[in-house]
Amino acid sequence: MIKSETAKTPLVDIQSSEDKRNIPIDRVGVRQVKYPMHLRIKDNGMMQTVGLFTLTVDLPKHFKGTHMSRFLEVLGEHNHDMTAETIPLILQRLRERLDAETSHLEVKFTYFREKAAPVTGKKGMMGYECGFVASGGATTDFEILVTVPVTTLCPCSKEISDYGAHNQRGYVSVRVRPTPDNVLWLECVIDMIEACGSAPLYPVLKRPDEKFVTEQAYNNPRFVEDMVREVALAFDKDDRILSYEIEVENHESIHDHNAYAYLKRDKSNL
Amino acid sequence: MIKSETAKTPLVDIQSSEDKRNIPIDRVGVRQVKYPMHLRIKDNGMMQTVGLFTLTVDLPKHFKGTHMSRFLEVLGEHNHDMTAETIPLILQRLRERLDAETSHLEVKFTYFREKAAPVTGKKGMMGYECGFVASGGATTDFEILVTVPVTTLCPCSKEISDYGAHNQRGYVSVRVRPTPDNVLWLECVIDMIEACGSAPLYPVLKRPDEKFVTEQAYNNPRFVEDMVREVALAFDKDDRILSYEIEVENHESIHDHNAYAYLKRDKSNL
Amino acid sequence: MIKSETAKTPLVDIQSSEDKRNIPIDRVGVRQVKYPMHLRIKDNGMMQTVGLFTLTVDLPKHFKGTHMSRFLEVLGEHNHDMTAETIPLILQRLRERLDAETSHLEVKFTYFREKAAPVTGKKGMMGYECGFVASGGATTDFEILVTVPVTTLCPCSKEISDYGAHNQRGYVSVRVRPTPDNVLWLECVIDMIEACGSAPLYPVLKRPDEKFVTEQAYNNPRFVEDMVREVALAFDKDDRILSYEIEVENHESIHDHNAYAYLKRDKSNL
Amino acid sequence: MIKSETAKTPLVDIQSSEDKRNIPIDRVGVRQVKYPMHLRIKDNGMMQTVGLFTLTVDLPKHFKGTHMSRFLEVLGEHNHDMTAETIPLILQRLRERLDAETSHLEVKFTYFREKAAPVTGKKGMMGYECGFVASGGATTDFEILVTVPVTTLCPCSKEISDYGAHNQRGYVSVRVRPTPDNVLWLECVIDMIEACGSAPLYPVLKRPDEKFVTEQAYNNPRFVEDMVREVALAFDKDDRILSYEIEVENHESIHDHNAYAYLKRDKSNL
Repeated sequence: MIKSETAKTPLVDIQSSEDKRNIPIDRVGVRQVKYPMHLRIKDNGMMQTVGLFTLTVDLPKHFKGTHMSRFLEVLGEHNHDMTAETIPLILQRLRERLDAETSHLEVKFTYFREKAAPVTGKKGMMGYECGFVASGGATTDFEILVTVPVTTLCPCSKEISDYGAHNQRGYVSVRVRPTPDNVLWLECVIDMIEACGSAPLYPVLKRPDEKFVTEQAYNNPRFVEDMVREVALAFDKDDRILSYEIEVENHESIHDHNAYAYLKRDKSNL
Repeated sequence: MIKSETAKTPLVDIQSSEDKRNIPIDRVGVRQVKYPMHLRIKDNGMMQTVGLFTLTVDLPKHFKGTHMSRFLEVLGEHNHDMTAETIPLILQRLRERLDAETSHLEVKFTYFREKAAPVTGKKGMMGYECGFVASGGATTDFEILVTVPVTTLCPCSKEISDYGAHNQRGYVSVRVRPTPDNVLWLECVIDMIEACGSAPLYPVLKRPDEKFVTEQAYNNPRFVEDMVREVALAFDKDDRILSYEIEVENHESIHDHNAYAYLKRDKSNL
Repeated sequence: MIKSETAKTPLVDIQSSEDKRNIPIDRVGVRQVKYPMHLRIKDNGMMQTVGLFTLTVDLPKHFKGTHMSRFLEVLGEHNHDMTAETIPLILQRLRERLDAETSHLEVKFTYFREKAAPVTGKKGMMGYECGFVASGGATTDFEILVTVPVTTLCPCSKEISDYGAHNQRGYVSVRVRPTPDNVLWLECVIDMIEACGSAPLYPVLKRPDEKFVTEQAYNNPRFVEDMVREVALAFDKDDRILSYEIEVENHESIHDHNAYAYLKRDKSNL
Repeated sequence: MIKSETAKTPLVDIQSSEDKRNIPIDRVGVRQVKYPMHLRIKDNGMMQTVGLFTLTVDLPKHFKGTHMSRFLEVLGEHNHDMTAETIPLILQRLRERLDAETSHLEVKFTYFREKAAPVTGKKGMMGYECGFVASGGATTDFEILVTVPVTTLCPCSKEISDYGAHNQRGYVSVRVRPTPDNVLWLECVIDMIEACGSAPLYPVLKRPDEKFVTEQAYNNPRFVEDMVREVALAFDKDDRILSYEIEVENHESIHDHNAYAYLKRDKSNL
């Protein structure tokens, strides 16, 4: 069982040994990699946040394994500039270092932007859970993930009740594939979604603001079905968007389960 | 580095070897143990659910380690009857098997009960996240954990707005220490808490029910501060309760953060 | 803004009102529904566990909304018998009650089975996270989800080190589509996966068992790449399986990130 | 039910109205507030990360509620410099703005630092989950939270097995109260903890590094009990530390549950 010392100089590269099972693997790599990242944002700025990465490549059938440490080395070289233009370069570098046909990157992060209250203009930072999913090489793809919390007020509850209407926090999660020639900023996707809720959420609301958003929500009741359709209409009108998936999940204030709607659309098929 | 075969017959009990660091350990054992459990409920029934257990004992300074497999053996002997009366027996068995002074058990589980809609009477099952925290031996204690989701409607939003009022799902989490001589059923704690919200939640609500709870919530606005105080008043009045902690967290429909209130009280100090 | 009382008798069905946005929705329904469930298991037994359900139907473009309470009513009628044969009946009932073309059910639950230690035979219950994903109506499908924790010992670490080898808990998550004519029990999928690790996990291991599994793992080193391939070979050989996805994630003991491999295969394309 | 417009000018401050329930509340405020933060680190640098905040004050018995928006305003003024010296200023500002006796802040964040592989020196960033818990006013306190992942190799498995030994990722979570006159950097706490594992974890390990840490772990077997004791010994020797709690949780590679040890010690009681 014990291997002789001499057999191990230099250290054997087990991963590169031949595999005879004849099974190529779609994706091999590292996951749940927490890493600091700098995100390029609209108007040429940069913001710093924390990324949770999955980095993979394909593995041909004749190799036993990939070389996991190289993924971290490539990430360490490129975490200082993440954007739709630089991610293809990271993907290319992964293919080179790992000797692969296809490479794949997924990253999730909190994107912050300043947001002012609707009446008093009081400002605070609001965070949005966002992400990128990208492939390069034999398959090329780039998708943007954005989750936006909104207020939704139930149209049925409003209609049937003598006063009041149940409302709640809802989450709109979209996966958007932009056209190759356009830049689609996270900011723009968030704006489109926030316009579709009964009311947007805010970090700071003083009393006049609270009155404003309460009445705004009551004046704009939305089912999850309405939310999905309104976001779809906005995405359909936007030429920067090729295809999309929309999920809306309302954390119903009258139930302990959620109301849910899902829509997937490839505009090239319309 | 390689140990001779003969040195290992019979298998050494490393855990029982002497430790010279002179440090007794408060709690040693197993955690995140998922196990089926049978819970005794009010009116002599039993319900089956899934428990997530932490089982520990104290470790005297002269022992290197505890014997982890015995915790699972004791759990396997006793998971068929969990209740305020049987948990002390499990704790006693843990002390015997582990040769310990003090034993400790924590378990979290979903407790289900049937709940009828307020107008139509339509029934469904509603789940509540509950738990027990118990110690036996040198220290003896028993506490009940219950989390109840409720509707909360904002008194400020109602007062300042011409119509509507923001409301949301809130979670009331309590930790209650009953008096030793009384039985305090999960059902009773849940009932006390549900009575304190703007409205309770339900698994099934038809239109007449939805109208009812919408108006009920509008008629009973509650801040997190109100919730904590109302639950405290109910617990203060109940002789079965010795001491308690109450946490209320509203998933505000107008913010992406939560409103929060916390109160801890030992009634023997009043 | 205030609606007259008379306008509301009987209560209006807002959901059934006409929608002019011309957008059919793929899936509308309820999510994160926690409900007790009875699962039919191999050898004609039943086990009780806790299900986390998503239930949806399609929504034609001319309806404003679905009727969310009916999903809970159907679930309440059918949670007492979940299996590959009964789920199509639930799906059919959903289509009837919601007047829909297609219905969809997803459920996740912990499946428990007794497992004996490899040498001493000491028994305990071991839980596995499992699930079903099923569609009925215009689209018909049924898939089984199973996650199995295993020990994986690194072939590279073993080969290059003079003694020892890093190993860790890994999770194999599969999504399997059985052939329509066969019954594929969760038990069988779990067995196939556990046979592919460096060693299986156990609820109870006494010292002779611990020696056994330690040496077993050292004798059977496995990369995530090996795991994915071994499981694929087992699934390829099994006629009850039409297509599958396999994900393996090792919680590396030498890193704070995970090693990952993913393979998707439709056997009809081979 | 409908309130006249005139009754609402200016907007009533419901929160400040008198409460007659006679119940002061320990803590009222906001929770799950995600906000960008700048953390002062050793050697005068600053790092930017994402904080998850809980901010509370006490609420006297005669007030109905607190003013939630002010917490966000104070956070927005101070998130650009978080450290042991600036947090008391934030706490003071909270008391002023909320007219409170006691204020409380909790924040959790990922702290990153560069870490070099032990043989090749290859560098990468490694993240650690950290936090601060602080009170100011009538009660003054400051505690540091640090969670460090480590490798742990089982002494029993090593001793009884002819070859190999099960090892796994473990998590050491400490809550440390420094002496008021000393600065205790996160970096120092992390270093003390990493020295106690069978081996530390690294972001990047090449083959010579992997050989090194594999053998290092095999040469330094540690139970959770050993981990807790070794960290306690290190904390006992360090004059900057007044009191501490240590939790170690091993994600056992041979079980699907965790091994666990917990120790709490106030050095002033020694």
